[in-house]
Amino acid sequence: MKHPCGICKKTEKVVNYSHRGMGLEEEINLSNQFYRDTNKAIIYKKPTPITITKVDYPSRLEAKITEAYFKVPSTTDYNGIYKGKYIDFEAKETRNTRFFPLRNIHTHQIEHLKKITEHGGIGFLIVRFSCLNQTYYLSYDALKHFLDSENRKSIPVSYFQKEGFLLKDTVYPRVDYLKIVDQFL
Amino acid sequence: MKHPCGICKKTEKVVNYSHRGMGLEEEINLSNQFYRDTNKAIIYKKPTPITITKVDYPSRLEAKITEAYFKVPSTTDYNGIYKGKYIDFEAKETRNTRFFPLRNIHTHQIEHLKKITEHGGIGFLIVRFSCLNQTYYLSYDALKHFLDSENRKSIPVSYFQKEGFLLKDTVYPRVDYLKIVDQFL
Repeated sequence: MKHPCGICKKTEKVVNYSHRGMGLEEEINLSNQFYRDTNKAIIYKKPTPITITKVDYPSRLEAKITEAYFKVPSTTDYNGIYKGKYIDFEAKETRNTRFFPLRNIHTHQIEHLKKITEHGGIGFLIVRFSCLNQTYYLSYDALKHFLDSENRKSIPVSYFQKEGFLLKDTVYPRVDYLKIVDQFL
Repeated sequence: MKHPCGICKKTEKVVNYSHRGMGLEEEINLSNQFYRDTNKAIIYKKPTPITITKVDYPSRLEAKITEAYFKVPSTTDYNGIYKGKYIDFEAKETRNTRFFPLRNIHTHQIEHLKKITEHGGIGFLIVRFSCLNQTYYLSYDALKHFLDSENRKSIPVSYFQKEGFLLKDTVYPRVDYLKIVDQFL
């Protein structure tokens, strides 16, 4: 099997049975579904924010949106409740093999995670380096520490290795991030 | 000023400076904005869930959705954090002057509020009887009690008066529902 990503120039075979071409978002959605099905946590991805400008009504009961635009999200993508705690996170995937470029996260999303943490919630990032086949949990506090101490536009993989938590490939759930959340409770 | 609603046949003048034709959703959005601005709570309305079926790219940076459909929401509309607690609610408006028809709330939204409450969150409904100019907070527990004991398709106003909390018209914020949440903390 060829490496799925044409960017990182890896030529060796990469066998990745757990992912099988599935994106991080899809895997997290499945994990959340698993958490809900097993009644462990109630966490959902928020719908994509859009501005609807035109709607047609071909019949009385059917509405068809014919013009809409994507909006810049003001919050993170995922939130919910686990063990009575408010959980809030953003998930991002990069093909970069050395750095996570910070342009992937909007400033107001970082600001949102800051507020959530101040209000007693658990805020974090899940970042996948797809070409390295590594997925990390980075707490908001570790992110803040990096932003406060470094004047860089990207976070090196080494920082995730040192200050984050590697999320091992598992089957049920695929991305078992609540295992890490447990360490913060 | 004439009564804004043509349904309930009220003929007397209704002066309602606080609402001025604003819908409940808009008022709750403004209240949430007020709570965020004053750093009291971080609560947002979730975007409307839609299924996007066609997107055009007139230019490299611009994406235009040209076909999409509304989805039945699987959760409630609002969630967030207040005093470290997970908050989750649905807001509905009815022109009915005697009952709140339960068809306004999807079964899985009630199921969602049930789970939230079981996991230690604070779940409730905000229901406005627009022709009565009355807005109520009804806790999930009070809703459950009604559903368990009555075999009816609508909740009478009297039940909201007895088991719910009247949300008085205020200016900042317009719908001060956290005042009621405080009683449950």
